[in-house]
Amino acid sequence: MSKTIDVLGIGNAIVDVLSSAEDDSLVAAGLHKGAMQLVDEKRSGELYALMGPTTVVSGGSAANTMAGLASFGRAAAFVGKVKDDDAGREFAHDIRKAGVGFDTPCARDGAATARCLIFVTPDGQRTMNTFLGACQALGPDDIDDSLAASAKVLYMEGYLWDPPDAKSAFLKAAKISRAHGRKVALSLSDAFCVDRYRDEFLGLIRDGVVDILFANESEAHALYQTADFDTALKELQGEANLLAVVTRSAQGAVVVQGASIVAAPAFPVETVVDTTGAGDLFAAGFLAGFTRDLPHDKSAALGALAAAEVISHFGARPQKDLLQLARDNGLLA
Amino acid sequence: MSKTIDVLGIGNAIVDVLSSAEDDSLVAAGLHKGAMQLVDEKRSGELYALMGPTTVVSGGSAANTMAGLASFGRAAAFVGKVKDDDAGREFAHDIRKAGVGFDTPCARDGAATARCLIFVTPDGQRTMNTFLGACQALGPDDIDDSLAASAKVLYMEGYLWDPPDAKSAFLKAAKISRAHGRKVALSLSDAFCVDRYRDEFLGLIRDGVVDILFANESEAHALYQTADFDTALKELQGEANLLAVVTRSAQGAVVVQGASIVAAPAFPVETVVDTTGAGDLFAAGFLAGFTRDLPHDKSAALGALAAAEVISHFGARPQKDLLQLARDNGLLA
Repeated sequence: MSKTIDVLGIGNAIVDVLSSAEDDSLVAAGLHKGAMQLVDEKRSGELYALMGPTTVVSGGSAANTMAGLASFGRAAAFVGKVKDDDAGREFAHDIRKAGVGFDTPCARDGAATARCLIFVTPDGQRTMNTFLGACQALGPDDIDDSLAASAKVLYMEGYLWDPPDAKSAFLKAAKISRAHGRKVALSLSDAFCVDRYRDEFLGLIRDGVVDILFANESEAHALYQTADFDTALKELQGEANLLAVVTRSAQGAVVVQGASIVAAPAFPVETVVDTTGAGDLFAAGFLAGFTRDLPHDKSAALGALAAAEVISHFGARPQKDLLQLARDNGLLA
Repeated sequence: MSKTIDVLGIGNAIVDVLSSAEDDSLVAAGLHKGAMQLVDEKRSGELYALMGPTTVVSGGSAANTMAGLASFGRAAAFVGKVKDDDAGREFAHDIRKAGVGFDTPCARDGAATARCLIFVTPDGQRTMNTFLGACQALGPDDIDDSLAASAKVLYMEGYLWDPPDAKSAFLKAAKISRAHGRKVALSLSDAFCVDRYRDEFLGLIRDGVVDILFANESEAHALYQTADFDTALKELQGEANLLAVVTRSAQGAVVVQGASIVAAPAFPVETVVDTTGAGDLFAAGFLAGFTRDLPHDKSAALGALAAAEVISHFGARPQKDLLQLARDNGLLA
């Protein structure tokens, strides 16, 4: 039996460790608010000692997106590397129980399962510190050719450019995907990540490897080295054959493709508790619509809904049934 | 320098693993909704496989109460046994970072740190399955005499009667506490727990070992083997020198001491997400008032406030600063 799925995600398989923190403590710890910083195991231990009481939940950008897609009732699978340890078993349990296919063999030795220490400030903003650990063992052999061939969309997080062999895994999958007439999507992940890999990301877009780009405002700015949103948007419109989805927090999202511009409002949120996963879940909602061939404004509305759900609680995975939530809000029949 | 604290809690040191679950899945797993059931490691593994995606947070009934007291600005310490493993380190980190003194030496070998698998149904009700693990290694040697002598209140959870030597730790601490003119409090924990140890718990009350009793309605019913609340209340009023605090969920709480009866309303909650820790945090609020010599109705109002905070989110530890919350609601100056 062949596997047919809507979206195959490739990303870093991470367990999140979240804690509330005051802005002052970020400064004291030398952290850049709102960013994702890579840390080694020693620094991870030092930062953990600075955190308050924690909540431990599975995370990882593309993994969160796949969990969101499954919650919308779409068929999703994930490729990512954990170690055979407690955190790795937690990650595997959680993503499978979220309804996402996950068959990447775990690492038997080497570094521990990745963890991301997340400081959540009173404004709901999150500051992330990732120890990549076992993610660094991901490589092309972890790609299941038939899965890559069958997925309507191949989705990759930009963070995947950090571990050494993960991008070759992605490029292998992208080649298979393209050969089967599928779409390839890239999320830019983080403005600093874009700074690290700007030329490579632009190359993926301009070489036609990537069809769909997800970015937030600061990532779009970083990609084109501008502080002006309209400039970034015009640049995105100028990329041949690119569908770009740009989120702007409370200002909603803009979907551009050549001359076409569609704006979508944010979904109202009573209290922003923790923005971790907002972009991941927006992408999930958008792709839930896209893979159902909905028009872009409807897809963006699903993205806004999923983002609103995830920022209303701690952690980057949905706690509500997103398909039901979309139906309750008249966004899906 | 001698240590002077408001409350010393003794309890099972547990990491909670929470997941949303439908009522049907409880039935399929053979679970008794709303109760705490002891499970061995094998059964714990089987139940984990039945859970959805999880949230992992520190728990343990008395430990939750101590975290609540610290959040109210009271000086609290906790005695409980973890193993020197990942979960044990998480428990120790979390309780210390909550501001609670915690110096019980961890177990170097033997069973893993305790974990409690908690199924949370859509009505917010929680069903708990505890693997006691390292908690079974707690004994009288873990009691710091000077700490027990200095605490205004010694607080113990009824669950402590489950591991073999923990009650002797409690009885040792209670003796020291009494010799120094302190108060001793017992939480009844769970109706099934009361069924297991009814005679011993009644003995503690009637022998004057326990001065303050915390119970919810079903535990009070179980203690006196009655289905009638007024009957249970009269029995509690008849226990010489006992201050009894009985919580009744949305109906608030009743504080009785001989002829005196004080009723306190529940604090309004918009959405009950997860009732785990409701009783623990009610006790925290009540003791935060009691150790400040507030009248019982004011103490009960603090209990209701803390319970309302903890049931509005996943997990049994407060996520807000309870002292600030009490001030914002005009309950403390």
